[in-house]
Amino acid sequence: MADGFADRLVRRVQTCGTCACVGIDPDLERLPASLRVGESTDRKTSAGVLEQFSKDVIDAVADRVAVVKLNIAFFEPFRGAGIDAYHESVRHAHDRGLLVIGDIKRSDIGHSSASYAAAHLIGDGPTDDSIPDAVTVNGYLGSDGVAPFVEAANATGRGIFVLVHTSNASAAQLQHLPLGNGNMVVEEVAALVHEWGKSSIGASGFSNIGAVAAPGNLEIARKLRRLMPHGIFLVPGFGAQGRSVEQVAACFDENGKGAIVNASRSVIYAYESSDGGDASWQESVARACDEFVAALASIHENV
Amino acid sequence: MADGFADRLVRRVQTCGTCACVGIDPDLERLPASLRVGESTDRKTSAGVLEQFSKDVIDAVADRVAVVKLNIAFFEPFRGAGIDAYHESVRHAHDRGLLVIGDIKRSDIGHSSASYAAAHLIGDGPTDDSIPDAVTVNGYLGSDGVAPFVEAANATGRGIFVLVHTSNASAAQLQHLPLGNGNMVVEEVAALVHEWGKSSIGASGFSNIGAVAAPGNLEIARKLRRLMPHGIFLVPGFGAQGRSVEQVAACFDENGKGAIVNASRSVIYAYESSDGGDASWQESVARACDEFVAALASIHENV
Repeated sequence: MADGFADRLVRRVQTCGTCACVGIDPDLERLPASLRVGESTDRKTSAGVLEQFSKDVIDAVADRVAVVKLNIAFFEPFRGAGIDAYHESVRHAHDRGLLVIGDIKRSDIGHSSASYAAAHLIGDGPTDDSIPDAVTVNGYLGSDGVAPFVEAANATGRGIFVLVHTSNASAAQLQHLPLGNGNMVVEEVAALVHEWGKSSIGASGFSNIGAVAAPGNLEIARKLRRLMPHGIFLVPGFGAQGRSVEQVAACFDENGKGAIVNASRSVIYAYESSDGGDASWQESVARACDEFVAALASIHENV
Repeated sequence: MADGFADRLVRRVQTCGTCACVGIDPDLERLPASLRVGESTDRKTSAGVLEQFSKDVIDAVADRVAVVKLNIAFFEPFRGAGIDAYHESVRHAHDRGLLVIGDIKRSDIGHSSASYAAAHLIGDGPTDDSIPDAVTVNGYLGSDGVAPFVEAANATGRGIFVLVHTSNASAAQLQHLPLGNGNMVVEEVAALVHEWGKSSIGASGFSNIGAVAAPGNLEIARKLRRLMPHGIFLVPGFGAQGRSVEQVAACFDENGKGAIVNASRSVIYAYESSDGGDASWQESVARACDEFVAALASIHENV
């Protein structure tokens, strides 16, 4: 584990000076005017435009953050062309020196799970630049479903983030169910993530097996932090989804480490609410990214 | 809901006389000799071979069952070409008169979930033959994550199967967690599926919103059946994964309805253990399909 995902991420966040992660959710209906195409456009053209937008956003933020998250959901409506655009966007982010998280939220068991891991975490091997450094995984199916991703991460020096506590309003329906032992479901999932990650801890003290965790409740955040002492938290919900600095700060450890915070729409669509003071839509995105980074700067004072 | 997924499925199963569903998990390493390609083959050629195998399997079983399940996990390693091969395989199954379940196990929230639903359940609308009649969905994120799929299903007359109780050994890690109210997690998920499906009940009495449920425990199976009286169960695990007729029979209602039973590897790779009595690998698959159908025939005596 000399140079696994966790170590690389910790090092890059330190060098860059921010735990901010820009999420790229490219929505065809919200593209800047210069990239807009008609509704009847064929899938290949549409996918090409999504790829261009993603690359332009990457260029706008590449010198400002250490890591971006590409959401494959927005590429899939364009089928084969969309998937190829996703992988080319991953490659471009790597070309620009960024670490990349593939937000794929896959889940299955056994051979099926191994096939997803081969597709999204192995590719042509550790040097394949079109494969992200880490992917998100849904753990509802238990160890059988997650193990092939853990193995792929360990074999390639990449990582995964298992969904533990998501940022949406209805997350509590399942994730907060109170168990007979007094815990909530998320606590049991967190304990599993800790187990799954034990053999993937790098020199940084963090594991390549992390968690998607965005509790609005500070007490839950601290509990999850204690349950996954080696887990890096990918914290969504900042920005458009309204998580506060105090809420995300609770996801960090006592040294102000162990989490990255994602904002997507509030950064990449900043030009929609631009006051016209920017010369281009990419400048609006860059400025919103700077504001995002500045908003998180106070976290290191909060922890 | 005059002609929604549930009604079409119930009608087709009745006409066909079997609740058997053949699962197509096309693994490049297990193809019949006539389709085998080298390891270094490019993705497009590999995807073409997977598509041919899937179509050949579909041809072998089309007159024997009402429904097939295509597992997208096995297409994804071939990126864009793989995804296009998946959709062409869906189209071919429709051309052969089959209903098709897309085993995609997707999950996300809000716009991301809507984008997955657009990609996999809407496509170019209700007449798009390259889109399956139903897809599998992971419900760990709660209503926010599932609602866009429910809306897409209702808008197109298609359906979804929400993962409730999977067939793998470690399913119990999360799914069987005992709650403070005496239930297990799966029971709460089942109650949610029942709620989500209430507005999608067709003339058959079944909802377009069903469940993936394969409890090995008969008592759990009966509980889930009671909690989802309108839900069609997609029951995996028969065949290679070893679920018995008695176990799957418990997933049906008192009229012997409300479930389809999937077998994948034991059917589509039957030629691997063929005694040589078949003239072609497709004949081995057809014979294994007949045996699968025959094995399930006794279910209607068991319920």
